[in-house]
Amino acid sequence: MSDLTDPLFLASKLMACPSVTPKDEGAQDLLESWLKELGFTVHRQTFGEVPNLYATRGEGGKRLCFAGHTDVVPPGKTADWQNDPFEPKVEDGMLKGRGASDMKGAIGAFVAAVARAEDTPPLALLITGDEEGPGLDGTKKMLGWMEEQGHRIDHCLVGEPTSREALGDMMKVGRRGSMNCVVTVTGRQGHVAYPDRAENPIPVAVRIAEALRVLVLDNGYEHFQPSNLELTAITSAETAENVIPAEAALRFNVRFNPTWSGERLLESLHEAIDAAAEGARWSWNPRVSGEAFLNQDEELTVLVQTSVQEVTGKTPEPSTSGGTSDARFISKVCPTVEFGLPGATMHQVDEQVPAKDVEKLTDIYALIIERYGKLTA
Amino acid sequence: MSDLTDPLFLASKLMACPSVTPKDEGAQDLLESWLKELGFTVHRQTFGEVPNLYATRGEGGKRLCFAGHTDVVPPGKTADWQNDPFEPKVEDGMLKGRGASDMKGAIGAFVAAVARAEDTPPLALLITGDEEGPGLDGTKKMLGWMEEQGHRIDHCLVGEPTSREALGDMMKVGRRGSMNCVVTVTGRQGHVAYPDRAENPIPVAVRIAEALRVLVLDNGYEHFQPSNLELTAITSAETAENVIPAEAALRFNVRFNPTWSGERLLESLHEAIDAAAEGARWSWNPRVSGEAFLNQDEELTVLVQTSVQEVTGKTPEPSTSGGTSDARFISKVCPTVEFGLPGATMHQVDEQVPAKDVEKLTDIYALIIERYGKLTA
Repeated sequence: MSDLTDPLFLASKLMACPSVTPKDEGAQDLLESWLKELGFTVHRQTFGEVPNLYATRGEGGKRLCFAGHTDVVPPGKTADWQNDPFEPKVEDGMLKGRGASDMKGAIGAFVAAVARAEDTPPLALLITGDEEGPGLDGTKKMLGWMEEQGHRIDHCLVGEPTSREALGDMMKVGRRGSMNCVVTVTGRQGHVAYPDRAENPIPVAVRIAEALRVLVLDNGYEHFQPSNLELTAITSAETAENVIPAEAALRFNVRFNPTWSGERLLESLHEAIDAAAEGARWSWNPRVSGEAFLNQDEELTVLVQTSVQEVTGKTPEPSTSGGTSDARFISKVCPTVEFGLPGATMHQVDEQVPAKDVEKLTDIYALIIERYGKLTA
Repeated sequence: MSDLTDPLFLASKLMACPSVTPKDEGAQDLLESWLKELGFTVHRQTFGEVPNLYATRGEGGKRLCFAGHTDVVPPGKTADWQNDPFEPKVEDGMLKGRGASDMKGAIGAFVAAVARAEDTPPLALLITGDEEGPGLDGTKKMLGWMEEQGHRIDHCLVGEPTSREALGDMMKVGRRGSMNCVVTVTGRQGHVAYPDRAENPIPVAVRIAEALRVLVLDNGYEHFQPSNLELTAITSAETAENVIPAEAALRFNVRFNPTWSGERLLESLHEAIDAAAEGARWSWNPRVSGEAFLNQDEELTVLVQTSVQEVTGKTPEPSTSGGTSDARFISKVCPTVEFGLPGATMHQVDEQVPAKDVEKLTDIYALIIERYGKLTA
């Protein structure tokens, strides 16, 4: 059983599986075998094409769940990599290969931390193969399944790569929500010499874009930067140079803090767009892909901070910056924070993390597990 | 020679030549033969692919030039036409086929008017095959050639379809200038969750578009409607939904009155765009395709107005509205006005004009020729 205490061995075994989302390629089989060896009861649930795994060990007390994913983003051109992305190796002190940072390294660290611990509180692992994909058949569905089955978790630690420059400089205690939208303005085509006979949709789209650009959603607050609306595309129907087009559209993304629910945000945006349209015909397709959340359980944050501090000497900044993660789903069920490896090379060619950091992360996770039991005893 | 006095016969012969710009298909050969029969000296000049014709008759006095074109716009889908676009016929009192209105009908009318007249002043015809195309190898080059050759014209009547609802309701005494432009804004691509690391070109393009939209170039004046800037396209580089693009562009057209020269307009627009860009990188490719002009020779306008009035009972409104024509080039050489058939169906499927209007236009042109001689004698 000695191998199960070696996080680099475990991470490397997982990284050798080319589990490009939503493929698994044996990654969750490996994990299942290790967890069974460690005394876990393992449930495998496939939704759509997506493999998911939920494992528990121990009863009688609050349950700490480690959440993460075995899928990885595509490697892009393999030829651009120094090494094969799916032939992991430790070289020059670095663990190299797709998933090293995001986040097979962290899974290896958590399993090794469990294997090293002598006495642990009730634990769970919630692992999906659909974090990097559309996220429809992964954690969200698993949480529904867990509720149906009566599987309760009390706190959750997500192993996403939250560190920035160095291991321990940042943890995530919340995330902004995200929405995407395309606004389409419909006019009437015509010749530029006779604009009165046409209805030009471009000035309307420009007025709407300008109204959205200057919109101040909020000013942020202690834990969150201000909500931000970003225009990501603007287009008009193709026409000849002297022709006013019949349609124009603009696309935007909003990253919003918990000042807003998705629903209230949509109401407010609808009002702003409608005012700017000044009666012109417009339509939209707003999609909220994640609500904003903030962990309110100070003890959970401090537990992670002190454990990180003890191993690395750094007190991680409790941040809410950056993109979304599955924490947006889990936070609806129980207090959730995120801590993992440095993410500088995630999603890039030559993804890598210091091998020492994987070792240290194992120590940090081990401390968290141990102290969680004492805290909630 | 009796056929040459029949404008419908002449127009139909020209319309049977499928002279889709810049093709000629025998149209100018026909015209040359008729003009020679009427005693004209005919010069044929081909520039690039474009056939052009200049013909003169008579000396000793001011010369009135009739200007026009034998090329036509494409018919589009022939199946959409009631009759074949290049098999002209008179049916239900209408002359039907491509070029009936724009402007083989008017050429037929002018040739017939000359054939009917007993005594005429010095005349010229300036006919191009490149009015509907790019206009580079047509009238503009012919005017240069005429200057080189010492061919002088004193006044010009362009036979474009200027009438709106009914023959005689409108003539053109000037035209707005036209410019086209694409403004490109260059930013830096990045992820929407980290807008600080990107430079979003869309808000810059929107600011520029908004500045151009609200720009009041002038308020128009007695003879001209206000200059108008029309946005005709807005685009951004294609990206995924969560990605800020690196480039955005907008296209616009300005129709400007003689308040502006093209050069001054460009200076003014450059200033407005640069202010709106607020230091962002932008470039443009402005092209002035025609300067604005206004006929200052009141006698020429009145000559046309009274002739039209006598035949139709209507005094044509001296307008400067609508698109550009070759009058923009000729007006630099001599006083120029435009009068022709109703243009309601020009450039459309089932182009047609009342056959009676072609007859009446012949009478009008005949009166103009006759009175021009007396006026300038």
